[in-house]
Amino acid sequence: MARVSSLLSFCFTLFIFFHGYTAQKFPNECQLDQLNALEPTHVLKSEAGRIEIWDHQAPQLRCSGVSFARYIIEAKGLYLPAFYNTAKLSFVAKGHGLMGRVIPGCAETYQDSPLFQPGRGGQYDEGQGQEGRQGQGQEGRHGQGQEGRHGQGQEGRHGQGQEQGQRQSQSFRDMHQKVEQIRTGDTIATSPGVAQWFYNDGQQPLVIVAVFDLASDQNQLDRNPRPFYLAGNNPEGQVWLQGREQNPQNHIISGFAPEIIAQAWKIDLDLAHKIQKPNEKHGNIVRVEGQFSAIRPPLRGQRPQEEDEERRGGEGNGLEETICSARVTENLDDPSNADVYKPQLGYISTLNSYDLPILRFLRLSALRGSIRQNAMVLPQWNANANAVLYVTEGEAQVQVVNDNGDRVFDGQISQGQLLSIPQGFAVVKRATSQRFEWVEFKTNANAQINTLAGRTSVVRGLPLEVVSNGFGISLEEARRVKFNTLETTLTHSSGPISQGRPRVAYA
Amino acid sequence: MARVSSLLSFCFTLFIFFHGYTAQKFPNECQLDQLNALEPTHVLKSEAGRIEIWDHQAPQLRCSGVSFARYIIEAKGLYLPAFYNTAKLSFVAKGHGLMGRVIPGCAETYQDSPLFQPGRGGQYDEGQGQEGRQGQGQEGRHGQGQEGRHGQGQEGRHGQGQEQGQRQSQSFRDMHQKVEQIRTGDTIATSPGVAQWFYNDGQQPLVIVAVFDLASDQNQLDRNPRPFYLAGNNPEGQVWLQGREQNPQNHIISGFAPEIIAQAWKIDLDLAHKIQKPNEKHGNIVRVEGQFSAIRPPLRGQRPQEEDEERRGGEGNGLEETICSARVTENLDDPSNADVYKPQLGYISTLNSYDLPILRFLRLSALRGSIRQNAMVLPQWNANANAVLYVTEGEAQVQVVNDNGDRVFDGQISQGQLLSIPQGFAVVKRATSQRFEWVEFKTNANAQINTLAGRTSVVRGLPLEVVSNGFGISLEEARRVKFNTLETTLTHSSGPISQGRPRVAYA
Amino acid sequence: MARVSSLLSFCFTLFIFFHGYTAQKFPNECQLDQLNALEPTHVLKSEAGRIEIWDHQAPQLRCSGVSFARYIIEAKGLYLPAFYNTAKLSFVAKGHGLMGRVIPGCAETYQDSPLFQPGRGGQYDEGQGQEGRQGQGQEGRHGQGQEGRHGQGQEGRHGQGQEQGQRQSQSFRDMHQKVEQIRTGDTIATSPGVAQWFYNDGQQPLVIVAVFDLASDQNQLDRNPRPFYLAGNNPEGQVWLQGREQNPQNHIISGFAPEIIAQAWKIDLDLAHKIQKPNEKHGNIVRVEGQFSAIRPPLRGQRPQEEDEERRGGEGNGLEETICSARVTENLDDPSNADVYKPQLGYISTLNSYDLPILRFLRLSALRGSIRQNAMVLPQWNANANAVLYVTEGEAQVQVVNDNGDRVFDGQISQGQLLSIPQGFAVVKRATSQRFEWVEFKTNANAQINTLAGRTSVVRGLPLEVVSNGFGISLEEARRVKFNTLETTLTHSSGPISQGRPRVAYA
Repeated sequence: MARVSSLLSFCFTLFIFFHGYTAQKFPNECQLDQLNALEPTHVLKSEAGRIEIWDHQAPQLRCSGVSFARYIIEAKGLYLPAFYNTAKLSFVAKGHGLMGRVIPGCAETYQDSPLFQPGRGGQYDEGQGQEGRQGQGQEGRHGQGQEGRHGQGQEGRHGQGQEQGQRQSQSFRDMHQKVEQIRTGDTIATSPGVAQWFYNDGQQPLVIVAVFDLASDQNQLDRNPRPFYLAGNNPEGQVWLQGREQNPQNHIISGFAPEIIAQAWKIDLDLAHKIQKPNEKHGNIVRVEGQFSAIRPPLRGQRPQEEDEERRGGEGNGLEETICSARVTENLDDPSNADVYKPQLGYISTLNSYDLPILRFLRLSALRGSIRQNAMVLPQWNANANAVLYVTEGEAQVQVVNDNGDRVFDGQISQGQLLSIPQGFAVVKRATSQRFEWVEFKTNANAQINTLAGRTSVVRGLPLEVVSNGFGISLEEARRVKFNTLETTLTHSSGPISQGRPRVAYA
Repeated sequence: MARVSSLLSFCFTLFIFFHGYTAQKFPNECQLDQLNALEPTHVLKSEAGRIEIWDHQAPQLRCSGVSFARYIIEAKGLYLPAFYNTAKLSFVAKGHGLMGRVIPGCAETYQDSPLFQPGRGGQYDEGQGQEGRQGQGQEGRHGQGQEGRHGQGQEGRHGQGQEQGQRQSQSFRDMHQKVEQIRTGDTIATSPGVAQWFYNDGQQPLVIVAVFDLASDQNQLDRNPRPFYLAGNNPEGQVWLQGREQNPQNHIISGFAPEIIAQAWKIDLDLAHKIQKPNEKHGNIVRVEGQFSAIRPPLRGQRPQEEDEERRGGEGNGLEETICSARVTENLDDPSNADVYKPQLGYISTLNSYDLPILRFLRLSALRGSIRQNAMVLPQWNANANAVLYVTEGEAQVQVVNDNGDRVFDGQISQGQLLSIPQGFAVVKRATSQRFEWVEFKTNANAQINTLAGRTSVVRGLPLEVVSNGFGISLEEARRVKFNTLETTLTHSSGPISQGRPRVAYA
Repeated sequence: MARVSSLLSFCFTLFIFFHGYTAQKFPNECQLDQLNALEPTHVLKSEAGRIEIWDHQAPQLRCSGVSFARYIIEAKGLYLPAFYNTAKLSFVAKGHGLMGRVIPGCAETYQDSPLFQPGRGGQYDEGQGQEGRQGQGQEGRHGQGQEGRHGQGQEGRHGQGQEQGQRQSQSFRDMHQKVEQIRTGDTIATSPGVAQWFYNDGQQPLVIVAVFDLASDQNQLDRNPRPFYLAGNNPEGQVWLQGREQNPQNHIISGFAPEIIAQAWKIDLDLAHKIQKPNEKHGNIVRVEGQFSAIRPPLRGQRPQEEDEERRGGEGNGLEETICSARVTENLDDPSNADVYKPQLGYISTLNSYDLPILRFLRLSALRGSIRQNAMVLPQWNANANAVLYVTEGEAQVQVVNDNGDRVFDGQISQGQLLSIPQGFAVVKRATSQRFEWVEFKTNANAQINTLAGRTSVVRGLPLEVVSNGFGISLEEARRVKFNTLETTLTHSSGPISQGRPRVAYA
């Protein structure tokens, strides 16, 4: 009996071994017979918000080679600066706030103007934007070519005047790198290793979703997203990584010896200790008490082109205009810039490396869609990219078909859910609520869509004989298939569509 | 006893575990101690042809990161449109036919001219090329800049005139994207996600071989080739994929709900049902009954340069000249374009991204060789690419040496066989039949060859002292090694060469 | 009892299975909780030197995707030509010598001038450089455009005059590709598949360290470094590869049938046999008896710019000026070219694709540092690259912090040791010997550094409010953190820093 059991165990072992061996030798993470609308699997709570993380090891995300997260930052919440090992594309799903990135080696081009706020440190309010604007205008008048040197001069004076500064602690001024106002619809590209922070200066929660491209060359580590904190902490640990569940995650400065920090920053050891000891309860999103008076440009009203130009012109004409001032943000919610616009149906806007050249390096692009009830996005596939679709509002019926011709997804997706659509998989979407809005992130700087129906579709490009012979229909029927639909991307879908379980084979 | 057996089982388990663990952590699919001439492992039969597939999980193809297939399309056979998740490079090994690709968003630039065929739909014959040419010439005369608008006008009129079209079903005309004549020697580059079809308009079988680059960034799924069918089916299933053996593969349109298809194409539900139900016996290559009257340009006679220019000029001068009219085909069988040409020995032609710029994106290039009996391709290695060599005619003796200095292949390869030659592996070929013809696909847009002998070889570039000390021979002997062979790529090899089993170590 | 044991074994099996399965499905080679200063793990001894190899499967090197080796070539030692499947970046750590690369298809631009050495073959000495220089000058005077043809003429004459050459074996002359003088500090870029040799013409050992980028697209094989020998052998086998421990490694020419070699090189079978039979005791670095009289340009005295220009000008103006004459070497030891230079502290020089354009293709760059006792390189991280740091002289205290905020390395590294610093990991270095010199290789053609402290650091780019809220400190304290350190990269660190075991969590 024991021998039998033992033999059984042995055989099972062998089976497992060969199973494991085969699985290992022939990885096929895109052998997807069923997709799911995904919800976050981990929530990291912070003092003034939370970070929700999707499991990047779910088969469909593994196939797409991406990771996904949602940041919910409450009013007056500050998402402390952090950087990633991957390229990141973020989308502001709700609310508005401030965003700053620190690009290594670039100058601190945002400075308080001493003329306008003598001794007013910590007293700025939301109206400060006006002053900042005037200050900037003045900078511009000083002459663009001089700003760089001017800035360094200021900086030097500051540094040397430290003693003095300490005496009049209420009257110092600050300088830092660019700070941008962000609002719903903004899409933000971030390079790996570049630190970024967000601040919610509104009353509503600021909701940002972001995709991390694990599979591109930009990520030189393994296929895991790794946030590096420059401040704050994560008491719950990097729960989405194996073997990291136990340890709380601290900011990287806390990892050095205090003496190192004291010497590097030329501060006393007490302050170094203070900095290194993170407040374990706060997490990585902290609540700002009092004013948050970072210098910022005035809010973009309807994005007037002139002001935009002016603002850019005010940043100087030196070297920093190239990398340091590269645009990384574009708003996708303005229908006047839509690529497809049909008043009765909705609109679709795309963002690729022609719009935002930095995307060429990041190998990412985005698409924003907003359609009305019963509008249908004609069936299509991504030729050269994987996509993840995140619903920002409403719900839709979606069908996805894989390479085998099986319907691998057939159901509703609704606000807050994520759906992965791998390269080549065909997808159709139909709004089932009054409005369906979503954002798609794609793993190619110039993702191409092919449609199955409509004026620019693949059937239109095929000769009638190919359509006729391919589908076993008459030339006349083929002609209807080819020419009946005149629309390109969006059409009106009337009546309910039968819906059921995904079919794995035509029967 | 039982305990012993149990313990044994336990230990074995541990061994297996560590074995598995090691194998997994240190993948070494290029640790190749023996290569083989490969034959197809799966055959997918269709009504009018068959698709033969090489197992892409054979160690040597896994190392090269490619997949390989051969399409045999019988007379009047139509390979229905399909696209892949990978870049593809095809070579027409035999026969001639028509080829069409549908590039998303490009205009339908091939139109029937109503002047020449009133009420003649479905009656075109092979002589129609002449008329097509005249029609095109006329288009040209209309003015190049106007073609785009003209085309759209036609299109609109068609669509609106649908009712009318249905009445006079024998008199409609068609428009579609570019259709090209292909013939033996044509090498065709195809981007991922781009649908392509072939039609055999000759009497002989049309044989096309194709390589699929699984390892490049263009493929964003796992390392498996995945054909997506736009029409037709594959009743035998994707037999080369694990877990797909059971299910027949259908075209992707069949995966959507019929209502979706009806709404997307604006056709009635009956027709949608008809389209979705593939004829299971036909497969993906169907026989065209009656005429196949897709509009096509006249056949290239000896590729006259003027006509070529003219034809290109006739395609319009608008946006579509960039991506939409990018050249994707080049013939490698014309000795007058050969890169190496020796009347007594043979010729070699290469195709890289300088010849065909689209290859830069696809990371692929090709080489065509044709040598006579006893001609030898001097020993060489690929510096920056893997290669797969497919024999289109005759046979040759081939020796391949790996990084360890072991002869990992030593034998004959003959028509229809495939040999993988990984990066750095040295190879020598000698024709043993009257003529030996082959095509090599390489996984680099500009694959570089280094030769071991001849006027441009590595030994010629080395100082005599290095050759002499390296081989332990005198300077005079080194001088013979360096300078005796004046030829560059091809030489004459007289007499038989001893042949045996691959040697794994020098003995 | 037996059943229990059996069940236990079964359960353990299951555990192992799931463990193995998980580990396999979710590779996380960058989950590094501890780094080590690495020493070579294998030594391959040769007649006149040795090759020391780091285990590329050590977790931290696996994470970085690189392999590392050190070549120690004794006086009069010749490292025989070999090529790799990967891009390679080498650094001359000590000594000086000659280096030659053979680029396929490029002309043999280095020729003996018959006017200056009639009948003097084999009698050149170290002073021959002077003559070579004169010869080159004369070449230049002949007219640049003619050199190519001139060279071919010589070549042809040689080949045809072989019989004559054999009679007067002491009076032949040679021609070969470029030979460069190398010396300490030279950084040399080598493409995959390009054969390279080194010769030590000094009295001291010539020490070269090299990094091999296994993870880039340039390597199309698996993630193992594979040297391909063109001459010589490795009797100990490729010990760092699984399953290759048993077989000695031979040069690739030895793998072909002798008849093939005889026919390819047009030599007799005896000589072919002789070439193929490597002297098993010599290895891949052999001792040159007598003179090593390869033609070479004169040694660069302090790299005078004019001579450099002149030398390049003398190489001809034809096609070979593009790829064939692309610069691949740059010296990083000249403080006058330093990117950061502080007489009291040290200097840092970087080499990226702006300096050496070939690096763009190789995806590699380098950094050379030399600092004095107690100088500190301010804490920093690599934004878009992995790095490996090799110590060429002295020792330093180094701390490395990972994404979790854990100090994963805290210790001394000294001459000859290697430390891997993955993307994003923060590192600080402080010289603890009189001088600390190192070279860093980075897996990006334009690796970016972000610093944590100093005038161009990330804290300087952040608004005061972010620093203050992030670290839980007052605005005044934040201001000290931001502005106290005025230096950019190097600072002075006084006093010893407490040092202990790596901390895996803040406590």
